[in-house]
Amino acid sequence: MGVTAGTSPKGIDMTSDQLANLSLAEQASLTSGGTAWTTKAVRDVVRALRLSDGPHGLRRPQDGSLLSASVPATCFPPAVTSGSTWDPELVRRIGAAVAREASALGVDVVLGPGINIKRSPLCGRNFEYFSEDPHVSAVMGAALVDGVQSLGIGACVKHFAVNNQETDRMRVSADVDERTLRELYLPAFEHIVRETRPYTVMAAYNRINGVYASENRWLLTQVLRQEWGFDGLVMSDWGAVNDRVAALAAGLDLQMPPDGTDRQVTAAVEEGRLDRAAVTAAAARVLRLQERVDRARRFDDWDVDAHHELAREAARAGAILLKNDDGLLPIDPAARLKVAVVGEFARTPRYQGHGSSRVTPTRLDNAWDALRRAAGPELELTFSPGFALTGPPDARLAEEAVAHAAEADVVLLFLGLPEESETEGQDRTDIDLPRCQVELLRSVAAACRKVAVVLANGAVVSVSEWQDDAQAVLEGWLGGQAGGAALADLLFGAHSPSGKLTESIPLRLQDVPSYLHFPGQDGHTVHGEGRYVGYRYYDTLDVPVAYPFGHGLSYTTFSYGDLQVEQTGENAWTIRATVTNTGSRHGEEVVQLYVAFDEPHPTRPRHELRGFAKLALEPGASARAEFRLTGRDLAWYSTKRGGWRIDPGTFTVEVGASSRDIRLRGELSTPGDGIADELTGASSLGEWLDHPVGGKLLRERLTAHPGAVKLDDVDPLVLSAVAQIPLAKFTGPVLGLTAEAITALAAAAQAR
Amino acid sequence: MGVTAGTSPKGIDMTSDQLANLSLAEQASLTSGGTAWTTKAVRDVVRALRLSDGPHGLRRPQDGSLLSASVPATCFPPAVTSGSTWDPELVRRIGAAVAREASALGVDVVLGPGINIKRSPLCGRNFEYFSEDPHVSAVMGAALVDGVQSLGIGACVKHFAVNNQETDRMRVSADVDERTLRELYLPAFEHIVRETRPYTVMAAYNRINGVYASENRWLLTQVLRQEWGFDGLVMSDWGAVNDRVAALAAGLDLQMPPDGTDRQVTAAVEEGRLDRAAVTAAAARVLRLQERVDRARRFDDWDVDAHHELAREAARAGAILLKNDDGLLPIDPAARLKVAVVGEFARTPRYQGHGSSRVTPTRLDNAWDALRRAAGPELELTFSPGFALTGPPDARLAEEAVAHAAEADVVLLFLGLPEESETEGQDRTDIDLPRCQVELLRSVAAACRKVAVVLANGAVVSVSEWQDDAQAVLEGWLGGQAGGAALADLLFGAHSPSGKLTESIPLRLQDVPSYLHFPGQDGHTVHGEGRYVGYRYYDTLDVPVAYPFGHGLSYTTFSYGDLQVEQTGENAWTIRATVTNTGSRHGEEVVQLYVAFDEPHPTRPRHELRGFAKLALEPGASARAEFRLTGRDLAWYSTKRGGWRIDPGTFTVEVGASSRDIRLRGELSTPGDGIADELTGASSLGEWLDHPVGGKLLRERLTAHPGAVKLDDVDPLVLSAVAQIPLAKFTGPVLGLTAEAITALAAAAQAR
Repeated sequence: MGVTAGTSPKGIDMTSDQLANLSLAEQASLTSGGTAWTTKAVRDVVRALRLSDGPHGLRRPQDGSLLSASVPATCFPPAVTSGSTWDPELVRRIGAAVAREASALGVDVVLGPGINIKRSPLCGRNFEYFSEDPHVSAVMGAALVDGVQSLGIGACVKHFAVNNQETDRMRVSADVDERTLRELYLPAFEHIVRETRPYTVMAAYNRINGVYASENRWLLTQVLRQEWGFDGLVMSDWGAVNDRVAALAAGLDLQMPPDGTDRQVTAAVEEGRLDRAAVTAAAARVLRLQERVDRARRFDDWDVDAHHELAREAARAGAILLKNDDGLLPIDPAARLKVAVVGEFARTPRYQGHGSSRVTPTRLDNAWDALRRAAGPELELTFSPGFALTGPPDARLAEEAVAHAAEADVVLLFLGLPEESETEGQDRTDIDLPRCQVELLRSVAAACRKVAVVLANGAVVSVSEWQDDAQAVLEGWLGGQAGGAALADLLFGAHSPSGKLTESIPLRLQDVPSYLHFPGQDGHTVHGEGRYVGYRYYDTLDVPVAYPFGHGLSYTTFSYGDLQVEQTGENAWTIRATVTNTGSRHGEEVVQLYVAFDEPHPTRPRHELRGFAKLALEPGASARAEFRLTGRDLAWYSTKRGGWRIDPGTFTVEVGASSRDIRLRGELSTPGDGIADELTGASSLGEWLDHPVGGKLLRERLTAHPGAVKLDDVDPLVLSAVAQIPLAKFTGPVLGLTAEAITALAAAAQAR
Repeated sequence: MGVTAGTSPKGIDMTSDQLANLSLAEQASLTSGGTAWTTKAVRDVVRALRLSDGPHGLRRPQDGSLLSASVPATCFPPAVTSGSTWDPELVRRIGAAVAREASALGVDVVLGPGINIKRSPLCGRNFEYFSEDPHVSAVMGAALVDGVQSLGIGACVKHFAVNNQETDRMRVSADVDERTLRELYLPAFEHIVRETRPYTVMAAYNRINGVYASENRWLLTQVLRQEWGFDGLVMSDWGAVNDRVAALAAGLDLQMPPDGTDRQVTAAVEEGRLDRAAVTAAAARVLRLQERVDRARRFDDWDVDAHHELAREAARAGAILLKNDDGLLPIDPAARLKVAVVGEFARTPRYQGHGSSRVTPTRLDNAWDALRRAAGPELELTFSPGFALTGPPDARLAEEAVAHAAEADVVLLFLGLPEESETEGQDRTDIDLPRCQVELLRSVAAACRKVAVVLANGAVVSVSEWQDDAQAVLEGWLGGQAGGAALADLLFGAHSPSGKLTESIPLRLQDVPSYLHFPGQDGHTVHGEGRYVGYRYYDTLDVPVAYPFGHGLSYTTFSYGDLQVEQTGENAWTIRATVTNTGSRHGEEVVQLYVAFDEPHPTRPRHELRGFAKLALEPGASARAEFRLTGRDLAWYSTKRGGWRIDPGTFTVEVGASSRDIRLRGELSTPGDGIADELTGASSLGEWLDHPVGGKLLRERLTAHPGAVKLDDVDPLVLSAVAQIPLAKFTGPVLGLTAEAITALAAAAQAR
């Protein structure tokens, strides 16, 4: 019997002329690439489609080889930075700009966004991902897909799924319970698939509970296609296929890059090991992808300056002001001040990470040049590198920097991670800044009282050890090609910082909930922390952090008020709150909505983000933030039910400026989802008694039995211990129950 | 095809006359009980064997009904207390005493010891278990088995396995990765089976990774019998069997209590669904159990006074002096002092937990009487209950106690948990003392500066909130029937406390590593904390605790010195250290040996207990503690290998007075186990290069390929990222590798 692959795929005419025109071998050939970066052409029926890396800019290779250099394209800030903007409209514009460049460079599908959850700050590819929170990842990822596909170019949502580490990524099994998958690792994919209809999804390298993502029928067919209604194409990550036939049977349509195994596919069909329909379905999805991208209007070029300006806007909006004691920042560029700019990163920016997402930029700003350009005539600027980016620590550079600092009114100290510590394929082993940089800060702070640290890093660095030496810390992340100019905009106050953390900054690496399980051993990475990742862990257990999820300061201040919780339907609510700019500068505030589950002993995170809005406000101005909640926002995934479950009760809605700076609290009540679980003999006595119908029936039955134990007479302590015993264990003379009687009761309970 | 059950069980003659004499129906009938507390008799071939609850004393029912009252027997301290003695010889004597009583009461098998790991302080049955540590559980459990079986009575090691909670215990699946099973939850069972040959083992109620323990062939046959060589009988916990035929096929020999389903067994054999040999094997094991217990010399009675005295000795040795500021304890009974004894528990002791282990004691001491008896003529004692054990808080009782305290030089305040909060079948939801007791302490401490708290509880209570109000805290646990007298012995200094904690006392419940996973939901309790239970978690992450594992004070003091690490063979060492009583009283010290694994990023607990010794020392006297270590003590369980693995390297041995009071440190080195893992195409390039033989062969092969990449020329950063890619992914022209070449290389590597 052949393996079948969810045939008759949604919306595909499996009997189309085009398909019928293709032999089995030709159909099979379509299910792997033609070169490392294109699909295969088949006669005049199908053309080769071009795929290019590029969540934050295109890596369009000069030729078809795997490691070819790429042609210039705009390097927008990576996801760590664009995610920190909390501005989906801005990310949508980036998506559209990337698509415009794709169009101009003959690219049909852009391989992004990457929306994996940041399980650990150690993950080497965190700079390519948005957040530790699935709601942020969902909204920002959807915005990028929307933007890319608004020009008819295909997006590719990746890496599906649970690709949370680089260590042993081609073999490691992410061992995760299903509730954690459903509540943490899959929701961003689900949201994007349901809301934006991405043309493609990329199956990850890793295994999930022992089964390779690329061969995981549950994931690729049952969940992605059948449950979520995905109607696009699934391609493999580059080199992720281990068993070509199993992958096709599981629902993987396109193997990349090709490895000459198409003949295995036809052989499997001929030998009855693979349903031919699986091959036809995959080929049909390649055809449909072509149809879709061929509808796009094509462009020959793009406005290089405008895209650079957009990159600058995004870098500016994604930088986060972590601290700003005594309002050290911004520095007035018109003031008469001596400012020492220290740190090689001011001159040689780190603006993107290493690996497949690496873009050859069209130009490259640095902060030192931008600061000099923006400075007024009275502002005296000096530069000293302070440290070298390679080689051993250089005491001479540090001394020169300290000398500059001693002369200065203010020091802008540019620190960051070395390029090699943030790269696809490798995880970090610590979250510390290089020692020589921390020592430089200490020396500089001893020489000058006013130090603002500007950080360049794609994943979280710990700040606990050194931040007391800095009055201000501006987290610039990786700013893309215009990051240097964006930092100057913020440091000189042309704009106010408005980014917020999409991931918690822990006090110590060992406070990270996955610490003891990451990156695993023996081919398994057990997700022991389950759904308690990031603030879901810290906030539930009251573990102190350096900076909480959602944190970010502005040059102005905001007040919150007028919370309104309006029920708009059955399990539907609208939440509104007014935010006022109470400071003296223009600014933007990211207002966050959490739903809180206050349980005496937690069975779920203390609260979870369910909405956010970024409001731009002039001084004194107010705006109303509005959020909608549905039953799903209150639900948890019950593996017993095999679906989402809404418990009746009252929940708290929290509106705040971070996960630990809740400004407003309200309540909403739900009757639950009204679904009573099915009763069986395996249901406990307590579950029977609690059941709206079954409880009554069972009590009637027990009362009717002569001499039966009267439940109301039983000691409550005993009853509560006994209540957890499955009803089937009570068959016998005492209660007068039989297996048949229980079956009949269960059927009766179900029928009403 | 019938299900088979590891036929031809070890040491059993399956063709014996006795077996041949039994029909299939008779054999099947032997595989379930005759009454709730006996096996079945079959004609004159087999007699009914009597089984009785009783890890710490016999619960021998008066009749055959399930809930029958029990006849009097000595109530020794439960395992929480006997475990805290760290004195296996003492526990062995208790086992022998229980067996003597069993013999006198016609009992053939004693249902104990319970050796489950204390995963959470919330588990309602923790008082029946020894420790959070498998080594302590193994040694103490083995001592009890040895003691019981020294008289020819059978022991029953329970609850096999991972029965770590009471909530939903008859259905819940303990979801645990295999390494955690092998390193934490199974080793105590393994040790006892290998070292003491228990006559029986009890399969637990719960499921393990989805499969009921009672139907778990991997557990009952593969691990227990085939790997560990268990040659006894497996019975079910009472009511634990859900599928009679599946249970028999899995290796469960005896269902308890009977439920009239023997006919299902014969039917399954007749219909070919069950191998007849499985039934014969189970029946043979019942026969062998009878043979074994019938060899025992029988006794008609026991020395009630001597057993009571043994119970007193154990209660004394198991009590733990947690704190003793300014040497408040002991109180000199000959002194002229006013001592206020406060707390109902001094008069009405809590001395055992609720549930199946509950013994009807032969007599019952209380501390109030014992203190009065032991007090000299100058010691003025008053008693006030302070609180009632039931009903609402009684302000009058508290006021009276405070009035007594105000008049006293010292207060002995007896606090503890209510009886109903520690019971089989129910877990706790907090670890706090009742509020009214904490308030009583506050009031009493305000009235009298010198307060010693004496605790009665079977599972850990938090002390953080109130212990500053007490100068001394004596953790008396549940003391058994002579616990009251034992406490008087310690409080008046007739003996020095010598118990130590076999479980950590956390600062807050939410610091407990299983907090977010316990007791689970939807029928699953995910063991997300894995092997990091108790001090394995706190010490690895430097989480502060109230009192660490292994802690316990004495009225005297001890110094440690002269650490010697001697290698005695390949992966065999003897560790010796000298302990000296540096105080002025007789005392006993529990010396602990840990092996420490100091890794930059931990892949296993920071250290693990591997040995202990309790030394009795007169003032000024010294003794030498000696421990033996083997390779297994350094090993970790590799699921990839399917076995234990010893990595080469240097390890630290720590000798100390608690897990956080390490006094001596030494080192030992091992070359590892010398086993090279098998290479395949799925092995990574790095694993190939690191392999002692494969690395050389691969390098030769690559060098021979014209134009191949020279590994030594590759950038180390790139090589280390590439090193984790499976070799099979490198087939192709670049390295000149083919699948066939890899297979040949692997075979060659294996052959050498």
